[in-house]
Amino acid sequence: MSERAITAPPPVSRRLAATDPATVVSTLEEFERWWAERHRAGRFEVDRIPLTELDSWHFDPATGNLGHESGRFFTVEGLQVRFGGVVERSQPVIHQPEIGVLGILVKEIDGVPHALMQAKMEPGNVNVLQLSPTVQATRSNYTQVHRGAQTRYLEYFTGLARGEVLVDVLQSEQGAWFWHKRNRNLVVKVDGEVPAAPDFRWLPLPLVHRLLRIDNLVNMDARTVLACLPPAGAGDAAGGARHATADILSWFTEAKTRCDWHARLIPLADVGGRTVAGGEVVDDERRRFRIIGARVTAGNREVSRWTQPLLEPRGQGLAVFVTKLIGGVRHLLVQARPEIGLLDLVELGPTVQLSPGEDVSGIEDPLIREVARGKLGRTRFSAVLSEEGGRFFHALTRYRVVEVDEDFVTEPSRDYCWVAGWQLTELLRHGHYVNIEARSLLACLRSLPS
Amino acid sequence: MSERAITAPPPVSRRLAATDPATVVSTLEEFERWWAERHRAGRFEVDRIPLTELDSWHFDPATGNLGHESGRFFTVEGLQVRFGGVVERSQPVIHQPEIGVLGILVKEIDGVPHALMQAKMEPGNVNVLQLSPTVQATRSNYTQVHRGAQTRYLEYFTGLARGEVLVDVLQSEQGAWFWHKRNRNLVVKVDGEVPAAPDFRWLPLPLVHRLLRIDNLVNMDARTVLACLPPAGAGDAAGGARHATADILSWFTEAKTRCDWHARLIPLADVGGRTVAGGEVVDDERRRFRIIGARVTAGNREVSRWTQPLLEPRGQGLAVFVTKLIGGVRHLLVQARPEIGLLDLVELGPTVQLSPGEDVSGIEDPLIREVARGKLGRTRFSAVLSEEGGRFFHALTRYRVVEVDEDFVTEPSRDYCWVAGWQLTELLRHGHYVNIEARSLLACLRSLPS
Repeated sequence: MSERAITAPPPVSRRLAATDPATVVSTLEEFERWWAERHRAGRFEVDRIPLTELDSWHFDPATGNLGHESGRFFTVEGLQVRFGGVVERSQPVIHQPEIGVLGILVKEIDGVPHALMQAKMEPGNVNVLQLSPTVQATRSNYTQVHRGAQTRYLEYFTGLARGEVLVDVLQSEQGAWFWHKRNRNLVVKVDGEVPAAPDFRWLPLPLVHRLLRIDNLVNMDARTVLACLPPAGAGDAAGGARHATADILSWFTEAKTRCDWHARLIPLADVGGRTVAGGEVVDDERRRFRIIGARVTAGNREVSRWTQPLLEPRGQGLAVFVTKLIGGVRHLLVQARPEIGLLDLVELGPTVQLSPGEDVSGIEDPLIREVARGKLGRTRFSAVLSEEGGRFFHALTRYRVVEVDEDFVTEPSRDYCWVAGWQLTELLRHGHYVNIEARSLLACLRSLPS
Repeated sequence: MSERAITAPPPVSRRLAATDPATVVSTLEEFERWWAERHRAGRFEVDRIPLTELDSWHFDPATGNLGHESGRFFTVEGLQVRFGGVVERSQPVIHQPEIGVLGILVKEIDGVPHALMQAKMEPGNVNVLQLSPTVQATRSNYTQVHRGAQTRYLEYFTGLARGEVLVDVLQSEQGAWFWHKRNRNLVVKVDGEVPAAPDFRWLPLPLVHRLLRIDNLVNMDARTVLACLPPAGAGDAAGGARHATADILSWFTEAKTRCDWHARLIPLADVGGRTVAGGEVVDDERRRFRIIGARVTAGNREVSRWTQPLLEPRGQGLAVFVTKLIGGVRHLLVQARPEIGLLDLVELGPTVQLSPGEDVSGIEDPLIREVARGKLGRTRFSAVLSEEGGRFFHALTRYRVVEVDEDFVTEPSRDYCWVAGWQLTELLRHGHYVNIEARSLLACLRSLPS
């Protein structure tokens, strides 16, 4: 599973007139050279500072909410959960009502689909640089609220002459930390020459998939877009599913109806058990995520210096997809999972999904608990990948795909359902179905030989 | 368009052993007899009372929100809209986080699909009784928070042995008046004997569709469920659409991204320009909807006497679908329309949608304005139908379907798109796409000869 264990894809003779060869990275070795060069070229410093020292960010005296003086970007507010009408708990949450653009440009070079990927710095990344989509921009970014440089390549995703749209869908992000956050996931296919800036390279799609196996390399934004792109020949693969799609939709509707939670925003000042201490928003027991301040100095971002809040989890998350072949068709055991920050509360998550701090022992089903502990099934994929480094500080999740035999338990409870891979791909045409952790794992599945 | 103008469907020889003939209503004449009898049998009084005299409903001293002491049912709260981060306006809104069940049982009798419909009283109905789904129950109803009688036929929709599920999807309701309201729309097909209580009758589906042409007869809850049921032979009709479904989804995503509104709940006390006067929540100019109190006495509801708030609009709404054949395929001109109370803000609405109090002159496009004024196109359908009588008092909308020639304007602006009828039927398998007014009109379209 280490970086060195990856077999480099066979070099291809690519040199189409329409693509500058210097902007194509075809092998793992070429990628590593470019990546090292990007590390040398970047200048990026992140310093922790007290929230009270952020520029232009203030705690509202009435609500205690932390926000930017422009009213843009995002705020840190409170979130209250009621169960059956009764208040159950509250926590801070990141509220970013804007819809951003996550877009990947693709192009055939010598018959192989290539993606224009970006070496992008984010303040919360453990390793500074991660491989990111062609465009990854909040609305505040791309409408230039902070008066920075224009977002490169944005015109391919928002203009009318943007090429063939392969993916265009709003998808949710972390329901444990975000309030109703969605981004527009786009894949656009182009034909003509697209000049690649130094931070950008055309990578064969199979190479991008292989890079997913390297810890903390392909960022969350790239993973969600990659998951939404139907694999080649996806149309032919339909059939042989354990449950008809109509039955899956009905099961999912039932799960949503069953969920008697209700979440709402409240003033951050009203969240119980949290205080602003040492310039951070922390919980009294020091066990949950905190909100910290950061000062960022960067050489190749839209603006070169800024401060912002970040959410810092304590510990590492875990997300596991249990998979098996049923009658030769790849199936995944999905879970209908309420998350307090999701717009529609319930989406389909992986078989196991534990937030940092949650323990495996909390999993009800004994077989799934054993899978989560790594004691059952064959691990087909395992890597630690980062969550969005623009909002989260060092937020890491262990992603695993575990294969089980066909005689493995059917549905362990009414919250679980075996769904064919192609059915999930179909559902990804629409929002509100597959959560970000499941989408990350679906992207990772593409790195498997099959 | 009047009740008398309807041609009765030909009587069919039905008398299947599995269905008690006395519970089947096959012709308009039979329907009228049953309906008159139901009017005689019901006892139903609605009195306006000041909100302060409601039993178990109180204004919260801190927020001014109006709620039930159980924490269940619904609340009347404030809603604030921000545009690009700046507060634009606020209004009261009905907040009902629970998901209710709207379910219609269907059954083949002598080869004709029949629906088990209910003569149901709702306090806000102009005419007391309307034709309603088999089950129309809030979660508080069917979990018996108010300790009333059990909801009839609920077991066919929530149990495991519920028959063949033809429709099962969460759909939104009025985005102008509700906050994030959704209900579960269900159609379940049964085979065996289902005894029909006096308020229930089996009606041939074509008869139900014809009854839609009668003012204020088929209620909103029935209309949304009927719209979600694919017409017979729907699968064969696919093809010949002006735009590929992928392109429609991309256009729709673009419209959502463009919408820079953000809505949030605020305390009712913080809504500007509204006061509690004369026991009602009214706006200072007396031009917008108000919240009134009602005391209800009923003979055939789960409980026989209760009080509740209702939203009373001033004036009548208008919803018009412009339709034409494109290459022989029925298309509808839909509008991507933000509504402040919708969970996902933007859904597909009819070509024209005006809330009570909004004027036709506000419609930007001159051709669509002419259609709205009734000066362009051929009216294929026109009836005044009621919105949900359990929450709204005398809320009426004029629903029209207007046919235009194939050379009628293409898309008048980027907010409009011609979508084939079968494409809308496909989208109705999912929530968050087609709004309640458009769904009402889609049900009405079923009443047309084609």
